[in-house]
Amino acid sequence: MERIKPHTLSGFMELTPQKQVRMEKMTEVIKRVYSLYGFTPLDTPVIEAAEVLLAKGGGETEKQIYRFTKGDSDLGLRFDLTVPLAKYVAMNYANLTFPFRRYQIGKVYRGERAQRGRFREFYQADIDIIGDGELSIMNEAEIPSVIYRLFMELGLEKFVIRVNNRKLLTGFYGMLGLSDKSGDIMRTVDKLDKIGQGKVRAILTEDLDIDVGLADEILSFISIKGSNADVLSALEGYRGKNEIFDRGLEELKTVAAYLGAFGVPESHFALDLTIARGLDYYTGTVYETTLPDHPEVGSVCSGGRYDDLAGYYTDRKLPGVGISIGLTRLFFILDDVGLFSEDLPTAPADVLILPMTSDPAPAIRLATALRENGVRAQIYSEAKKFKAKMAYADKLRVPFVAFLGEDEAANGSVSLKDMDTGEQVSVPLSEAPARVAQALKSRPAVRPIKG
Amino acid sequence: MERIKPHTLSGFMELTPQKQVRMEKMTEVIKRVYSLYGFTPLDTPVIEAAEVLLAKGGGETEKQIYRFTKGDSDLGLRFDLTVPLAKYVAMNYANLTFPFRRYQIGKVYRGERAQRGRFREFYQADIDIIGDGELSIMNEAEIPSVIYRLFMELGLEKFVIRVNNRKLLTGFYGMLGLSDKSGDIMRTVDKLDKIGQGKVRAILTEDLDIDVGLADEILSFISIKGSNADVLSALEGYRGKNEIFDRGLEELKTVAAYLGAFGVPESHFALDLTIARGLDYYTGTVYETTLPDHPEVGSVCSGGRYDDLAGYYTDRKLPGVGISIGLTRLFFILDDVGLFSEDLPTAPADVLILPMTSDPAPAIRLATALRENGVRAQIYSEAKKFKAKMAYADKLRVPFVAFLGEDEAANGSVSLKDMDTGEQVSVPLSEAPARVAQALKSRPAVRPIKG
Repeated sequence: MERIKPHTLSGFMELTPQKQVRMEKMTEVIKRVYSLYGFTPLDTPVIEAAEVLLAKGGGETEKQIYRFTKGDSDLGLRFDLTVPLAKYVAMNYANLTFPFRRYQIGKVYRGERAQRGRFREFYQADIDIIGDGELSIMNEAEIPSVIYRLFMELGLEKFVIRVNNRKLLTGFYGMLGLSDKSGDIMRTVDKLDKIGQGKVRAILTEDLDIDVGLADEILSFISIKGSNADVLSALEGYRGKNEIFDRGLEELKTVAAYLGAFGVPESHFALDLTIARGLDYYTGTVYETTLPDHPEVGSVCSGGRYDDLAGYYTDRKLPGVGISIGLTRLFFILDDVGLFSEDLPTAPADVLILPMTSDPAPAIRLATALRENGVRAQIYSEAKKFKAKMAYADKLRVPFVAFLGEDEAANGSVSLKDMDTGEQVSVPLSEAPARVAQALKSRPAVRPIKG
Repeated sequence: MERIKPHTLSGFMELTPQKQVRMEKMTEVIKRVYSLYGFTPLDTPVIEAAEVLLAKGGGETEKQIYRFTKGDSDLGLRFDLTVPLAKYVAMNYANLTFPFRRYQIGKVYRGERAQRGRFREFYQADIDIIGDGELSIMNEAEIPSVIYRLFMELGLEKFVIRVNNRKLLTGFYGMLGLSDKSGDIMRTVDKLDKIGQGKVRAILTEDLDIDVGLADEILSFISIKGSNADVLSALEGYRGKNEIFDRGLEELKTVAAYLGAFGVPESHFALDLTIARGLDYYTGTVYETTLPDHPEVGSVCSGGRYDDLAGYYTDRKLPGVGISIGLTRLFFILDDVGLFSEDLPTAPADVLILPMTSDPAPAIRLATALRENGVRAQIYSEAKKFKAKMAYADKLRVPFVAFLGEDEAANGSVSLKDMDTGEQVSVPLSEAPARVAQALKSRPAVRPIKG
């Protein structure tokens, strides 16, 4: 038979079983935390009509999209979860209840240049709150508080959610008489961390033809740093010169105050005037989340407030606020820098049952009883030597092995070996399930990420 | 702005929020039950290299596949989860521990003719057990026992797992001297339910040029019906004439006996000689699962034993046994015939908090405390009339509403309304979370499907 070399495409993550379990645990925590905040799960197709996907147009997107025809249909793979959400809300407007809170965890596709740590197929884990005509600012504080709780529950304790407000920037550039260039300026300033102050200044004065004095005012504005109180106090100095700026300042103060009320400590959120998010549709609060120990990684979770989610599909005004975790990339980074906890159980079963007699009935009965007690059990039914069976349990790191030999069959017992301690005890068959269930329950809960 | 009509492609399922919750609950039960049997989760890319996907070739598959190029790459969307499993096991052979038990729930793609209840993008929920060189027959009984428990836990009680063994058929056609035609005969006989005995007979005698006497022997063989004991007893009459047949009979007897030991009652499994599964790679036990009240639906869960999973990629002999649930189709059918339980909670939150004063701090504190107790809480922060707020809770079927007005703020309490009973009680703020958590916990567990 002619053989094909089996391979997985470059830029597509495919994990070992052990790592996949870590990914699953992360996903479970994300779903649980998102649900605690009243977000309902949504699932949309991976394939959409190209005209729907590209309604917004835009150069970069169009180049990266996986687009193809099938029969007469011009199709594309979704490149984010926001466009499908906009489509969904516009289509189902009459049957949805607003504010509509949804989470979606799904794969998206971008044909980027292959590069270590960059993926062409990757999971995003999004939450959005969509209002009908209007949406309270409290949501702009609640969204980062969800991320705070989520990252803490994952065990990732060192992160900072950076918060800014686009109105502050729009208003500030208005003060300087640079409103017509504000989009270009924000895109430039957004690169500050990557290219440094000197290059930003050069782009502002040379490429954008901005007066040197004004460029320095911009650089001085985005250099406002310090505690959140320091930043707010510095911003007060600009108050009263531009209406949009003043509204942005009020919003930022409100969001900062509510963030505290939601239990997010100052150690984990920072007002940061350099953040603009490159996308044009953000109109209020914007977020980025960085890992202080890994600045090279950039933002692992970003989003913000927008006034018009679905303008390309409907004339309904649908303002919203949302945030997106680049889950595959986050997983890659955590794995790469060794941040996953080795203590997180990854075994596919809690008990491996070894029948040592020819009649498998007692093993099947024990497996059934264990499963009825919520214990994950596997019967090892291959005809192998004892050593091979134990090696199997070892390799998979199964916490308990249950032996069912002649002696056990004769007196209705099972020998249970705790693979961590090596301790082995004989237990009546009828008591084994509850005993194992109890032992598993009393083990300390382990978070996927360590510190 | 030019508007695009938002639409979802035909053949692609996209659910309302309420239905999506039902789908999620089904998926949760599937994952939990698969895990109880020691299957580890796996995730593979949706896109594979076309040469990998099509290593096996085959006409129907090639016509239906979504295939396209990106740059220089010839790509395709996976059309099942078995080919990616074969690729994965062949690639990762050295690092896997055998028998390797994995489950995978994921979307697959087939460009079928659009038709009601047929999907081009659909979820499959697969389990497979892969051996290294050999695999015990006990696994062939355990696989349908997983499906039995799963369907029962979903609440779908009326189903029958039909079991046959390909060796019986191969052996029987060998007895008749029709070995060279056995593939064609099996594919014909497989259509018995769809086209009837007359047409099967016509194809056998005319298209396949089989002697009328032999065709009648085939029809009489596949007409063996009755209790499982009846079927096995009738099969005994053919024993001793063909070695492969005799092995198949032993296997079928063993699987039937083990199925009983695994707790599957005779009401839910039937030995059925008409089942062959169209695919060529099944070599032993084969399964189909039908709903007696909905015969028009065909099999909702099928699979079997194969001797050579990954022969197109590796010279390792990797026998296995697996089964696949067509999840999207099953969901569609259950929904279509109204089998989902109306009692299954679909609200995105357990408690909707209505702040009735200008200070939202007490509402935020209550929401935080509820969430810390595992209660899903949402603050309704829009400036709407009371009636609109209650309508929101009603529409989403939120079980509890918590009012925080002037009175409650003054005495540190919250008014909790049970939306089912209409009962409203005033509770100290500090006691509310535990009280709601307890009330939710004491509600009866509801299975997604009724009866």
